[in-house]
Amino acid sequence: MNEKKRNVVIAQSGGPTAVINASLCGAVEALREKGVSKSVGRILGAKHGIDGILSGDFVDLGSIRGRRFERIAMTPSAALGSSRRKPTPEDCAAILARFKEMDVGGFFYIGGNDSADTLRIVAEAARKDGYPLSCWHIPKTIDNDLRSCDHAPGYASAARFVASAVAGDDLDNRALGGVKIDVVMGRDSGFLAASAALARKRPDDGPHLIYLPEVPFSIEKFAGDVKAACRKFGRCVVVVSEGIRGGDGKSIAAKLGNGEKDSHGNVQMSGSGALGDALARAVREATGLKRVRADTFGYIQRSFALAVSKLDFEEAWSAGASAVQAAFGRGMRTGTIGIVRAKSKNYRAEYVAMQIEQAARTPKSMPKKFIARSGCDVTKAFVEYARPLVGNIPDTEVLV
Amino acid sequence: MNEKKRNVVIAQSGGPTAVINASLCGAVEALREKGVSKSVGRILGAKHGIDGILSGDFVDLGSIRGRRFERIAMTPSAALGSSRRKPTPEDCAAILARFKEMDVGGFFYIGGNDSADTLRIVAEAARKDGYPLSCWHIPKTIDNDLRSCDHAPGYASAARFVASAVAGDDLDNRALGGVKIDVVMGRDSGFLAASAALARKRPDDGPHLIYLPEVPFSIEKFAGDVKAACRKFGRCVVVVSEGIRGGDGKSIAAKLGNGEKDSHGNVQMSGSGALGDALARAVREATGLKRVRADTFGYIQRSFALAVSKLDFEEAWSAGASAVQAAFGRGMRTGTIGIVRAKSKNYRAEYVAMQIEQAARTPKSMPKKFIARSGCDVTKAFVEYARPLVGNIPDTEVLV
Repeated sequence: MNEKKRNVVIAQSGGPTAVINASLCGAVEALREKGVSKSVGRILGAKHGIDGILSGDFVDLGSIRGRRFERIAMTPSAALGSSRRKPTPEDCAAILARFKEMDVGGFFYIGGNDSADTLRIVAEAARKDGYPLSCWHIPKTIDNDLRSCDHAPGYASAARFVASAVAGDDLDNRALGGVKIDVVMGRDSGFLAASAALARKRPDDGPHLIYLPEVPFSIEKFAGDVKAACRKFGRCVVVVSEGIRGGDGKSIAAKLGNGEKDSHGNVQMSGSGALGDALARAVREATGLKRVRADTFGYIQRSFALAVSKLDFEEAWSAGASAVQAAFGRGMRTGTIGIVRAKSKNYRAEYVAMQIEQAARTPKSMPKKFIARSGCDVTKAFVEYARPLVGNIPDTEVLV
Repeated sequence: MNEKKRNVVIAQSGGPTAVINASLCGAVEALREKGVSKSVGRILGAKHGIDGILSGDFVDLGSIRGRRFERIAMTPSAALGSSRRKPTPEDCAAILARFKEMDVGGFFYIGGNDSADTLRIVAEAARKDGYPLSCWHIPKTIDNDLRSCDHAPGYASAARFVASAVAGDDLDNRALGGVKIDVVMGRDSGFLAASAALARKRPDDGPHLIYLPEVPFSIEKFAGDVKAACRKFGRCVVVVSEGIRGGDGKSIAAKLGNGEKDSHGNVQMSGSGALGDALARAVREATGLKRVRADTFGYIQRSFALAVSKLDFEEAWSAGASAVQAAFGRGMRTGTIGIVRAKSKNYRAEYVAMQIEQAARTPKSMPKKFIARSGCDVTKAFVEYARPLVGNIPDTEVLV
């Protein structure tokens, strides 16, 4: 798309993150840079993902500068609005028609694996149609389940929220005792629940148990584990991923939740305390303990401005900028920006253009080396993986 | 207690706050100051409130200095551990016996209204016994329901968490739509739920509705209010205090919760998603809306280190120091530190020695001037009251 000035559309999709707007602003800034801007006409933001493309609802991003631009970058959740709509073949035809009518040569879609799949379908439709369209996926997901990324933008900030929340909650539990269950987001992979391990400062700090979707969950074993932890520590803080599954592979939350599904066929997990409450009941019944509490962190873990990881913000920005550089480079027409951890002494991320299939569909699980043999904790390798992303959690001190 | 060196006991009680250790350190620092220290022997912390006094479990606070002392002050939740035990007459006799045996002349108890009542009972027992004991209550409560305080230490930090969380959650709801219900702590008073109003930056920002324990709650009116807000804003963010009561004065959460009670006769409200889930079901049924979600903020709102209000930290410290100054002054032997807002142009707090009855028992409700006529919002007067305490919430920007 270097020949003449063509317009560009950017959109955001899926569950928001605390830094998804940093990716948006990183892309816009890169589109305004010297070498690129000569090929770029208008920079348009579609409102609410592909819904805005279909309905023709755009905002002029290219004209936003100064303090307002900075504030957008720092705002958690998708400033353009988001969407969970999965395009039908008719939608794809309509999107292409819109892009042709508007002379759109570049389409940047910030989202997770469902969004990458949407982009793949649109790119494929354009290819079949012979319409020159560069489609780039900019990764984001608090679940951290993209195969294309060592870690995805948005994860580290959500992890910083979770680690901070569990650190405080563990001090609360130390002060008042009993069993505390914290349910953390993560549909298919346990990275976010695992990040609670970063809360630990002392050998007897919680979380004392961490349950991940990668390890088959048994309520009997769970209750037994809690009982044993109480014997050892005189109290117990448990972190449970909302995505835990039984030995049959079926979601435990789905068995207990309201069964509502989105357009990608995913069962609703967050926005309900049902899983936590059911686990608390099970512990009460199995152990006879009285003070058993459950909190479900819910949506606030992905949009809490005060817990943003500085590194995450910078990487989200760079991922957006890298997609633009890839689109205007001499390589692939369509793809996703993968994030690779450099094999260097100090932590460093590299942004690599990859085939979009690398980000689409099949989610990434926690590798075995990150899961403790007990099946209810993480390893030191995981903590070493996550620490540079999340940053330090404030030091604390206890007298009991 | 100016004649000879006598020992001092400090303890923490009730639900922890993010700044309760600032009060602890403020008191310890004041006890080590020149004019006071000549009358002070050992400075002992009782572990887990009166439980530590009864069992003789103390920690030497006087010897803790430097970085460790600073870290304790900055640690959320009660560093000495807490307790919800209400002393029996036998307990009071045992506490007195312990104090006599240890030559304790000063007892400082950091807590809410239940804790003030406990202190009152101990002070009364000492008086009847003729034992010279100075008892001072240092206020803390995230509920902000102490009659002795314009606002109590701990409230502003919890309010800062709530306002930040709702600000992020409202952006999330703006991006994805639907109805979002956030359940906030507050057994008897709506101050903490009300603080969600500080999240608003734009006229159409949520929370669009706020429900307080001070206004009789009807599920039919609630569902109707949500429906009307959805018509107006195309979406709706609702904040509900866990303490909401029906027209009969009975707790709505208690009707739906597990009915467990603590030793002060209070029903368990937090640590369960039952209230939020029931309200979400009611909205779904009444409106036919599909995307209705509920999160219960739970325990993390009172112990989140990254959301501490700077002013709250300083005031908690000053409240602890003021209790020591009152104990060693020429006035009352026993009392509570009230916090009064100075009638000055700029915000300023004054710390005033008051009768302990001012803090004990009957909790304070939100005054009428803080509650909107609609019954489901707060007034500008409330926002002006709360803003200086909570501090600014980061500015945000939206494109939809």
